[in-house]
Amino acid sequence: FPSRPCCIEALLAEAAEPGAPTRPCPCPLPSGDTALSRLVRRLLSARRSLDLCLFSFSSPQLARAVQLLHRRGVRVRLVTDAQYMGLHGSQIGRLRHAGIQVRHDQHSGYMHHKFAIVDRRMLITGSLNWTTQAIQNNRENVLVVEDADYVKAFQDEFERIWEEYNPANYSFL
Amino acid sequence: FPSRPCCIEALLAEAAEPGAPTRPCPCPLPSGDTALSRLVRRLLSARRSLDLCLFSFSSPQLARAVQLLHRRGVRVRLVTDAQYMGLHGSQIGRLRHAGIQVRHDQHSGYMHHKFAIVDRRMLITGSLNWTTQAIQNNRENVLVVEDADYVKAFQDEFERIWEEYNPANYSFL
Repeated sequence: FPSRPCCIEALLAEAAEPGAPTRPCPCPLPSGDTALSRLVRRLLSARRSLDLCLFSFSSPQLARAVQLLHRRGVRVRLVTDAQYMGLHGSQIGRLRHAGIQVRHDQHSGYMHHKFAIVDRRMLITGSLNWTTQAIQNNRENVLVVEDADYVKAFQDEFERIWEEYNPANYSFL
Repeated sequence: FPSRPCCIEALLAEAAEPGAPTRPCPCPLPSGDTALSRLVRRLLSARRSLDLCLFSFSSPQLARAVQLLHRRGVRVRLVTDAQYMGLHGSQIGRLRHAGIQVRHDQHSGYMHHKFAIVDRRMLITGSLNWTTQAIQNNRENVLVVEDADYVKAFQDEFERIWEEYNPANYSFL
């Protein structure tokens, strides 16, 4: 990253209906191989679960990919930061509306992770927040790791946070 | 991370004068094993080079560790973000004053990496900005990777950025 702006409609269409004839998207963006398209491909490879732990999530393109997985029956869980989830352009409301489980922190520090775990076996992590600004304009890194030890460390952290941010524990003082 | 607040004076003193008797630090912070002390230990293991690529660097503790390495003759290079290096509390000015080479971007996107490479063999990367807020209050991850392929990818990115941000290329329009 940065990634050239690109169109991921063909990727999404293929994931929604594998093998169906794809209509070319009318948008003017190129649809070639980019850092973003590679990231989307990894996400769309999910078959059973997608665990997301994201400080900031405002990219409509990535939100569409996540919604598609949810519709396809993949179990999506999303942890995010309470202070950033309400900002303009955040996709969290839309994802909740679509029925995706979202939990957030309740303290003043940031939930600053930016990682995803696909099918409990592939870790995608780095400096990249899931925002169009970050995707298109920043110098960023994303690591894709399938080493079981690394994946387990992040999966354990995800489960810890998922429980800690259980709404049953929220206080409204 | 988050890391409990802790004192790293003993670590710094030992690195400055190995084997010298360490005077206990008078500060009230504990000096046990924390995420921060583990990070500092990895950094202080540098013998030849330390390449830093950091969006935001305002932690005085980490700045002291970096200055110590510089004084010890380790070649320290630092790339940072132009918009964040001038913020209140930034350590960049102090590090430059100490004689450390610093380069920064010149565009509106962020230089959002947060990684360090020790002796061209150990990669330290993750979500953690080098700020006291991040160290003490946020949920953060830091990966330590010695796999040569991963290290090389980040070292190559560092060298690319280091050349791209060469002050000879700065424009002052």
